Amino acid sequence: MARIKKFYEYMEAKELDMVFVTLPRSIHYFTGFNTNPHERFFCLFMPLIGDPVLILPELDLDEASRKSCIKKLRTHKDNEDPMEIVTDLTKKNAKKCGVEKEHLTLMRFEEIAGVVEAETYVNVESEIQKMKVIKSSDEVASIRQAIRISDEALFEGLKMVKPGVTEYEIAAEIQYQRIKLGADGGGLMVVSGEKSALPHGRTGDRVLKEGDLLLIDGGVLKNGYVSDITRTFGVGEINEQRKEIYETVLAANVAAIDAVKPGVSFGELDKIARDIIIDKGYGKYFTHRLGHGMGMNNHEYPSIHGLNRDVSKAGMVFTIEPGIYVPGVGGVRIEDDILVTDDGAEVLTHYKKELILL
Amino acid sequence: MARIKKFYEYMEAKELDMVFVTLPRSIHYFTGFNTNPHERFFCLFMPLIGDPVLILPELDLDEASRKSCIKKLRTHKDNEDPMEIVTDLTKKNAKKCGVEKEHLTLMRFEEIAGVVEAETYVNVESEIQKMKVIKSSDEVASIRQAIRISDEALFEGLKMVKPGVTEYEIAAEIQYQRIKLGADGGGLMVVSGEKSALPHGRTGDRVLKEGDLLLIDGGVLKNGYVSDITRTFGVGEINEQRKEIYETVLAANVAAIDAVKPGVSFGELDKIARDIIIDKGYGKYFTHRLGHGMGMNNHEYPSIHGLNRDVSKAGMVFTIEPGIYVPGVGGVRIEDDILVTDDGAEVLTHYKKELILL
Repeated sequence: MARIKKFYEYMEAKELDMVFVTLPRSIHYFTGFNTNPHERFFCLFMPLIGDPVLILPELDLDEASRKSCIKKLRTHKDNEDPMEIVTDLTKKNAKKCGVEKEHLTLMRFEEIAGVVEAETYVNVESEIQKMKVIKSSDEVASIRQAIRISDEALFEGLKMVKPGVTEYEIAAEIQYQRIKLGADGGGLMVVSGEKSALPHGRTGDRVLKEGDLLLIDGGVLKNGYVSDITRTFGVGEINEQRKEIYETVLAANVAAIDAVKPGVSFGELDKIARDIIIDKGYGKYFTHRLGHGMGMNNHEYPSIHGLNRDVSKAGMVFTIEPGIYVPGVGGVRIEDDILVTDDGAEVLTHYKKELILL
Repeated sequence: MARIKKFYEYMEAKELDMVFVTLPRSIHYFTGFNTNPHERFFCLFMPLIGDPVLILPELDLDEASRKSCIKKLRTHKDNEDPMEIVTDLTKKNAKKCGVEKEHLTLMRFEEIAGVVEAETYVNVESEIQKMKVIKSSDEVASIRQAIRISDEALFEGLKMVKPGVTEYEIAAEIQYQRIKLGADGGGLMVVSGEKSALPHGRTGDRVLKEGDLLLIDGGVLKNGYVSDITRTFGVGEINEQRKEIYETVLAANVAAIDAVKPGVSFGELDKIARDIIIDKGYGKYFTHRLGHGMGMNNHEYPSIHGLNRDVSKAGMVFTIEPGIYVPGVGGVRIEDDILVTDDGAEVLTHYKKELILL
């Protein structure tokens, strides 16, 4: 409830008559209740005057009654129009109404706006992100738990890697280990050889061979919080160019992490890593930003790219993940999860970063 | 390209000056190129006059060049504003502009609208869904492939089920089998005992015991197409009430499937299944719709619920998944994937439906 109280202070300051929170992870953040509503309407309605109400699909009622700190619940069945609940709650007297513009679909917005008829709609997403960006110690503990599962599953899963196994077999083994360790879900990408040069490649039936780079990226979800880690390995001996690429990415990763502390801008962090890669002549092969915030979501604020002048603050958690992807040769990415501390940074991911030849 | 041509006929008929397709699966459908852009701007821009252009993150350029049938590609880096490309392509002369309102976020819409300044914005999502709802034989073959993986992984995974194992262990085994069989991804829920009465419960560390219901729901993604299947089992002997619930759900599942043929309305199908469940006194425990369309997406058009007057057509693929969830007792859901044929229906899922006691 402390989070809701704090948000109401913001609503008062901004003179928002009502806010519709519709991103499930935001609702989880405010209420403690976590669900995937699929395309069903799921909304935390916060009127400035009156109590917040959670509007949810009837099939989630039982769990929501137990977990949500908001006790006013209104449910709708699949064959009912949830906008009738919104109509009943709002009575068209809003001047300024808050919504999450980066998440809310135009369709839902038009439905809500059709009922509320407010004069202006304000994006409250950045305010919620701002609240979420500084993690509590409980939240950091959950992230650590997710990371522990990732690290351990990767360690166990890699024991079976050798030339001749397929990407699928490696992914299956790692996922098996993750789930046995209690992961609630998560993504995983295992790409090898030339395929490792595709930053968004997909796990496939490619057979590993001596000399390949093997890139494994992924994270798990645990109690509503995520981990996100990438390591790249050599399959047996790898050639000098691949080693150089690896050492360059590692140097960029380490330099950027060393620079993390309260007050440093995200643009600066990106530049530190990028300059190292440019110096070695691989600048054009580092085709993405340096990293991104994480927590309840795999990708949340901040976005760590060259133009972002915002600065690090103690309690933020984000990834540092420089990469070099040379078509035909292969790709290397080394990704860690970083907690900004009062006087520097703590690397939450513990998996070894020196080149490992499997 | 045949799909794009067909869509241009619709654009002409509706006098749409330009369309922005932004749902990744729609872009896959039109171009053959499949990626997850995360929060990056990824868009198939189709002007009525001129050639379609694919706007994409630079890191996807290599794969898009190989896979997209649209050869005009415009890329943006993470530190560039993709709206500059939109500005360059559109030149503010649109009266009617098409967007996917059920997917496009209000934020992106405001960005696009700020550049395009069209007089009206039309939702083209239902038109694209209408095109996608009738599956080609290639598409059905992909769905069959995904289902084959699901069915086989479930069969193999269940061999280790007995009192004493946890939900996590079962999920780990099934995921291991799926990935080994080549699944590109997919979701899985393993819930047992009272937890099976939560339709959106989550896999946990609950230990299976004799007499439990065990509900396993999930599907895999393969080559851009999905499967979706639920089976419920008894762990050892189960009591009479649980058996009655099982037989009632099975009867509802079978009756609804038997009724599927071109021309039958979705509302009718829902009613057939629901009436059987109501007759047995469990009506209030069937808290969701009967099913949903599937294909490139887990949930697509049609939605099979009581108020949907639309009718089945040959080539549609959807789920039939009645369920009964009694708090404290447990839940049963039996979900099949159905292809509407010229004179009836083919059940694509082949996993046995009679009650299996593990």
